[in-house]
Amino acid sequence: MSWLDEVPWNDQGLIAVVAQDFSSARVLTVAWMNREALQQTADKGEAVYWSRSRKRLWRKGEQSGHLQKVREVRIDCDSDAILLKVEQVGGIACHTGRESCFFRKLENGNWVTIDPVLKDPSLIYKK
Amino acid sequence: MSWLDEVPWNDQGLIAVVAQDFSSARVLTVAWMNREALQQTADKGEAVYWSRSRKRLWRKGEQSGHLQKVREVRIDCDSDAILLKVEQVGGIACHTGRESCFFRKLENGNWVTIDPVLKDPSLIYKK
Repeated sequence: MSWLDEVPWNDQGLIAVVAQDFSSARVLTVAWMNREALQQTADKGEAVYWSRSRKRLWRKGEQSGHLQKVREVRIDCDSDAILLKVEQVGGIACHTGRESCFFRKLENGNWVTIDPVLKDPSLIYKK
Repeated sequence: MSWLDEVPWNDQGLIAVVAQDFSSARVLTVAWMNREALQQTADKGEAVYWSRSRKRLWRKGEQSGHLQKVREVRIDCDSDAILLKVEQVGGIACHTGRESCFFRKLENGNWVTIDPVLKDPSLIYKK
């Protein structure tokens, strides 16, 4: 049985994926993979997700250049989540130009932005 | 508008939650919350999840004593995942007696267990 067959893909054929920076240990993002995305991630050594909004494979950094080089692929005890330890190219995982997508913190009943923008998104996604 | 209303609960009324150890920075587990679980987590300062298998609120550590004391609650850019930074009581998050649920790593096409059991589960869940 293939390691891919051990994943109990959900009813949409997906599994939740946490990307964590290998060096800073920051949790960068949560995304989704289907079987093909996980296979390509393992084969290429770069994160490939399934975009639920665009309904297609999404090579992380394909537009921004902010690839995620995969150092480790882990799976959890009940095999329904994947953890990628990655080297985040450019130090920016979020489309807002921040290191991590988790840049808002709950403070006194409000989601407060606490992390800085490292690069203006208009410079990241320029044509 | 309440901070809870800013969460775009999925069609099952849930959001994915990553728990990360505040000290070790290990990603401990991925679980799910509904609105009530997130409200209780914020109110109590201890992680309360929604158990999809048992279909009920699940206070993390209710049986094992391995509570998760919440130090930070974060939300991601598109508000569809939560990151909890927690103090993991007992240093064990996984029901297998390991620190993290992500104890298997992909190596040469196999999921290989690489983290030690810190405490025998039969001692954790004894009656």
